Amino acid sequence: MKIERAIDLKSLQRGIDQDSEAQLSSVKSILNQVKEQGDAALFELTEKFDGVQLKELQVSPEEIRQAYEEIDDEMVEIIKEAARNIEEYHVQQKKQSWFFTRQDGTLLGQKITPLDSVGVYVPGGTAAYPSSVLMGVTPAKVAGVERIVLISPPDKNGKLPAGVLVAANESGVAEIYKSGGAQAIGALAYGTETIQNVDKIVGPGNLYVALAKREVFGTVDIDMIAGPSEIAVLADQTANPSYIAADLLSQAEHDPRSAAVLVTTSEVLAEQVAEEVDKQLQTLPRREIAGEAVRNYGAIYLVDNLKDGIHLINEIAPEHLEVMTESPMELLGQIKHAGAIFLGPNSSEPVGDYFAGSNHVLPTSGTARFSSPLNVDDFTKKSSVIMYSETAIKDNAKKIAAFARLEGLEAHARAVEKRLGETEHE
Amino acid sequence: MKIERAIDLKSLQRGIDQDSEAQLSSVKSILNQVKEQGDAALFELTEKFDGVQLKELQVSPEEIRQAYEEIDDEMVEIIKEAARNIEEYHVQQKKQSWFFTRQDGTLLGQKITPLDSVGVYVPGGTAAYPSSVLMGVTPAKVAGVERIVLISPPDKNGKLPAGVLVAANESGVAEIYKSGGAQAIGALAYGTETIQNVDKIVGPGNLYVALAKREVFGTVDIDMIAGPSEIAVLADQTANPSYIAADLLSQAEHDPRSAAVLVTTSEVLAEQVAEEVDKQLQTLPRREIAGEAVRNYGAIYLVDNLKDGIHLINEIAPEHLEVMTESPMELLGQIKHAGAIFLGPNSSEPVGDYFAGSNHVLPTSGTARFSSPLNVDDFTKKSSVIMYSETAIKDNAKKIAAFARLEGLEAHARAVEKRLGETEHE
Repeated sequence: MKIERAIDLKSLQRGIDQDSEAQLSSVKSILNQVKEQGDAALFELTEKFDGVQLKELQVSPEEIRQAYEEIDDEMVEIIKEAARNIEEYHVQQKKQSWFFTRQDGTLLGQKITPLDSVGVYVPGGTAAYPSSVLMGVTPAKVAGVERIVLISPPDKNGKLPAGVLVAANESGVAEIYKSGGAQAIGALAYGTETIQNVDKIVGPGNLYVALAKREVFGTVDIDMIAGPSEIAVLADQTANPSYIAADLLSQAEHDPRSAAVLVTTSEVLAEQVAEEVDKQLQTLPRREIAGEAVRNYGAIYLVDNLKDGIHLINEIAPEHLEVMTESPMELLGQIKHAGAIFLGPNSSEPVGDYFAGSNHVLPTSGTARFSSPLNVDDFTKKSSVIMYSETAIKDNAKKIAAFARLEGLEAHARAVEKRLGETEHE
Repeated sequence: MKIERAIDLKSLQRGIDQDSEAQLSSVKSILNQVKEQGDAALFELTEKFDGVQLKELQVSPEEIRQAYEEIDDEMVEIIKEAARNIEEYHVQQKKQSWFFTRQDGTLLGQKITPLDSVGVYVPGGTAAYPSSVLMGVTPAKVAGVERIVLISPPDKNGKLPAGVLVAANESGVAEIYKSGGAQAIGALAYGTETIQNVDKIVGPGNLYVALAKREVFGTVDIDMIAGPSEIAVLADQTANPSYIAADLLSQAEHDPRSAAVLVTTSEVLAEQVAEEVDKQLQTLPRREIAGEAVRNYGAIYLVDNLKDGIHLINEIAPEHLEVMTESPMELLGQIKHAGAIFLGPNSSEPVGDYFAGSNHVLPTSGTARFSSPLNVDDFTKKSSVIMYSETAIKDNAKKIAAFARLEGLEAHARAVEKRLGETEHE
């Protein structure tokens, strides 16, 4: 890993793939096919892309029972404990409806209502992600969403990974379907004979999934478009280089386009981390992926002081930030832009991926400037509540009418003046 | 206005214009021009589309002073009172950062941070919308956004409407620019020599503005894509037909594609409202627009009982809902999908457009199923905070590592195991 004094954040930027125009047209055609042909399209496209002829789209209770047999009991207990931790965190995010009143009889409020239905997409492919199930489903369940649907691509045998099924069952999902890619997003957005459409689709996926989510946005709501994972570590001379190297590599192993950045005030630490990364990399099973990520999107930046370091971190707005300095909590107030902030030497990033309780669906590619981790608010919506009394409208109708006329909207003015019993326009 | 017993909600649906493909390519080219040429593009496009050669993009203090001279003092006081009401409502939406701790030394939290910078687009054209200024700026200000920029298309004399400038000044905007359409959105998203780019763009606009916002989404955040206005009224035999007709027309006058729907249990009321709409329509200055809206997207639906009525309202998920029944507050719990809910005979919809305090930027076209009124949360973002103690990591590292290995992510497992002092992989 290289140590750099000239800071060039542009080199860390990873846009959407160059091929996306061609892929977009493919995604549009898949979405149309699902819209027009429903289930038939899902069966056909699953055979084409996942190489399996499905008999049923929905996972059966028998398949869920089998999944528990495949996973050892200790692992089931770990999944259950993680689910409890995740629920404990997300319960804190729940909001109440509220109102306030004015002396003139006005009541104004905000009503919080859970969404009716949500679809959680869980990626398949080479790895299975039961943790993504917990992270997508739990905030929806805590929000009070009545219908939570899970969808994920099947393997060559037409099955979903046992861990995914166990996590789905533990988090209380009642409907699980086998379908992946753009076709799964189409099914959730438009509905098919078997799969009723939902109001919102969440969960990460490959480029096809991301493009499909963007296409159906408006018909349904979506969460963010997830890019490759990122980690930034802010550290001073007190930090453990071996911890930092391990944590950087934990994100680098996700994807050759993952970014792993150390920002440090210590040249000694910088050199030690660079060495440690190279050393730890050699024995990693996914060393090719992690190595490519570190070469292309890895960097160690030396800064003069922590203030400059934090400025740089805020510029990067990383998905994951670890702070390993003498007094990490004291720096929290200065950190403006980061999806998740891990404080101190023991808060290794994977703690948040699996177990602590916070969500691991986080804003990437600098969108932490304006986006949030997946949370309970994402599964509710607000309605304003307005009740004017007779006194309130009589006191204010003329003012409201004047404002409406300033905007040239006479019917607005007359609507409030009607409440004064005025009839000059009739 | 027609009374219908067969309920066909599809006839109320208004998609995006058929021309949008051609307009999209025009929008893309405008955005590129702004990205490449900056200010020069803004001057050129403003001359082309708004018919005026600007000298400066930014509104001067002198122009703001002149605006106050153009608006009478009473109107300024009304704008100030509306601004205070809007602030009072939005202050209630402000959220605190929070944390909780576990006995093992774990601290988990959620940090709320305002966005750094926001751009508020205010439409121009035939009407001026000072109220949109208050509604876009106030929640950003309450959220704590440091830099709030306002942008709006100039008239043929190169000026912005006096009401817009007064509202902007009263709500504390320091930067106001003259530019409209897709070019204004491009300037906010990419920045120019004069206009520094922002992190989020809010505010309604025409189709070009909507398409441009959708294009730049990802580079910056946006609020919702606003469609034509809608009002639905749920009423029983106790309601005043003249009030209902006036309120329906207040939304119909916005746009020929506005929707105005009455859902009622009373056939007598239905007939009276139908008559009243026709009568009141005749003397409206904007009767052509309102008339077309009522003919194309107006409907009176008769239902057997209020339960069916509420079911229908939830299907429509209207932007504005008025409830004029004997006990409107008792129905609030059953209303799931509506942007703003106006209760009782005195809560005429324009009350919410201008004055009561709630936001008038609301989800349209059925998106109230999953979207919210513009609010303070839209101008903040959350960061998760995770601090594990030595005890917490030692107690849980093996469990976390097992979960990571279940997902095939060995570097994740090793990162947490590093904290156990294990070195077997080195």
